[in-house]
Amino acid sequence: MAQQHLETTGAEGSAGEVVAAHLREQATEFLRSLRQHRESGGAAPGGTAEEAADAARALRRSARRISGTLHTFRPLLDPEWSDALRPELAWLSGTLAQEHAYAGRLERLLSALHRLSGAHAVPAQAPAALAGRVSTAQLPRNENTASGNLTVGAAKAGALLERQLTLARTRAHSTALQALGSSRFHAVADNVAVLASEVPLRAAPADLDALAATAESRLAEAVAALPLHRAGHPYNAEALVQGLTADTAPPSQDAPWHHVRLLLRLHRYAQEVVPCGPGGGPTDAETEAAAALDRHRDAAEAAAAAAHAARTPRIAPATAYALGVLHADQRHEVEAARFAFQRAWLKETVHTT
Amino acid sequence: MAQQHLETTGAEGSAGEVVAAHLREQATEFLRSLRQHRESGGAAPGGTAEEAADAARALRRSARRISGTLHTFRPLLDPEWSDALRPELAWLSGTLAQEHAYAGRLERLLSALHRLSGAHAVPAQAPAALAGRVSTAQLPRNENTASGNLTVGAAKAGALLERQLTLARTRAHSTALQALGSSRFHAVADNVAVLASEVPLRAAPADLDALAATAESRLAEAVAALPLHRAGHPYNAEALVQGLTADTAPPSQDAPWHHVRLLLRLHRYAQEVVPCGPGGGPTDAETEAAAALDRHRDAAEAAAAAAHAARTPRIAPATAYALGVLHADQRHEVEAARFAFQRAWLKETVHTT
Repeated sequence: MAQQHLETTGAEGSAGEVVAAHLREQATEFLRSLRQHRESGGAAPGGTAEEAADAARALRRSARRISGTLHTFRPLLDPEWSDALRPELAWLSGTLAQEHAYAGRLERLLSALHRLSGAHAVPAQAPAALAGRVSTAQLPRNENTASGNLTVGAAKAGALLERQLTLARTRAHSTALQALGSSRFHAVADNVAVLASEVPLRAAPADLDALAATAESRLAEAVAALPLHRAGHPYNAEALVQGLTADTAPPSQDAPWHHVRLLLRLHRYAQEVVPCGPGGGPTDAETEAAAALDRHRDAAEAAAAAAHAARTPRIAPATAYALGVLHADQRHEVEAARFAFQRAWLKETVHTT
Repeated sequence: MAQQHLETTGAEGSAGEVVAAHLREQATEFLRSLRQHRESGGAAPGGTAEEAADAARALRRSARRISGTLHTFRPLLDPEWSDALRPELAWLSGTLAQEHAYAGRLERLLSALHRLSGAHAVPAQAPAALAGRVSTAQLPRNENTASGNLTVGAAKAGALLERQLTLARTRAHSTALQALGSSRFHAVADNVAVLASEVPLRAAPADLDALAATAESRLAEAVAALPLHRAGHPYNAEALVQGLTADTAPPSQDAPWHHVRLLLRLHRYAQEVVPCGPGGGPTDAETEAAAALDRHRDAAEAAAAAAHAARTPRIAPATAYALGVLHADQRHEVEAARFAFQRAWLKETVHTT
């Protein structure tokens, strides 16, 4: 996979020029998205909320790519300059991601409640822009039957989650708007504008392929450290271990998987700069593995949100019970995602060896 | 698997004689266990509780075998007589099974709570005779930490389950003792004593192998009707669908699996009468499949017990939350057992074709 493509590299120019071209492209995309976001009025009323969300997504997308490229191809760039910019890009894309994440989490939890309540009319996966609009009104309410207690619990749990996550989402929206108006953001935008015109390269003898290969081997090492053997045995019940501990922090068992998710992303961004392998892009198995790790992260955070909601004072036992079932269901999804990753990675390994 | 063993059958005598010999053997075993149970004083104080439990288990074991043989080889026997005895044997083994079942259920739920609380010192699987002695005192209690709320929930859930299932177990124990002293039971014992000396055969031209093959094909048909394809896809989340419905009845999706469990048992008992196949007994895959279906039944009943406990009035939300997690955990076990059955059955099919 990390074959040398000296001819190609030679044809396109020096290593620095290849990286500079990619950074310029992403920086231009960043500035375009920023303009689009401003024109959409930052989710002002008038049907532009969807445009604003699209623009924010595109902004995050290019911010992540710029940051990843600065990281992987660091030896080719002015180190002080890029080391200063990277945390700022991470801050920006992190801040912009929150609103979308809360909306997605609520949608995931409400649709799980639907499924667990045996409501057959589960709404189709709503477009991301509509996320958060699934309402608890769609949950079946059986108040008029004597045994409808737990279904009432599901409805109440849904209402509680909707209240908490909508509040968090609204706050994240305000925070994002504030961030986009801050001088800190303007400094980031100025730096990205520099990238769009003149990438601060360093005259250094560095091999593009070797740098991309380093990103790949970092990923391979992190994957090798994962408990993949265990994850490959379905129903190992690993993800729910400590499902009832007092610890409010996310279970430490998730951390290595989240780390691999980031390294896989860096590897994929490096591939965009230095296309390698037969297809020149990510393999199907890689795409599948990345999707599994996204699902892993989403389910882990949704499970934590359900556990958090269960700690709300003075909730009804039926609500708490439904949140317990929901938490376990999402931890089960975490385990399922690990299994899916293991399968995809096995394919990937077969593919590359 | 249903090869004709005419030579063997011929050597051992007519079809009726083979069945009669098996019934005599099981009836003798039944009477021996009954004597042993009486001598142990029916769980009277003085260290004989374990003996009484062993005797009751042996009694159930032979009652099930007699009943199964009467069913599968019905055309060879006096139909009125055997049709009258079978429900009585089912009543007896059902009544005797309850105490053991409640003890096992409590043990399963408490050890799951241990696992979910991240208590590393999970006690080794206790011998069945000791079941029910696992105490909630072993559950970690974090009352002295501010965030220990949910662990307190696990401890309280354990205490609630222990109270409810111990009460149910004590009642089942009394019911079993009453049953063993009843005239209804004495009528069963008298009938079994008849079997031990003189099996009421019917002069009928019936093929032993064909009757055993019928039991096997009934099993194969029921298995073919199971959603095995779905069960073979790990993490299909099927078992938890309707995990939050108001319905207090056990989910109807379990019923076909429970039915297959009974048919598999009948098939295995028929094999004891007419040994067939290369090994002459059940294959490893069959034993594995049977164990998976036992686990399926146990987990389904444990999940129902957790859901039932959550409906106790005035419980704390933390207790209800823990019971919700526990319920979902056991429903995952149900799904895992279906997966294990599917795997074992696949092996069995490869083995026999």
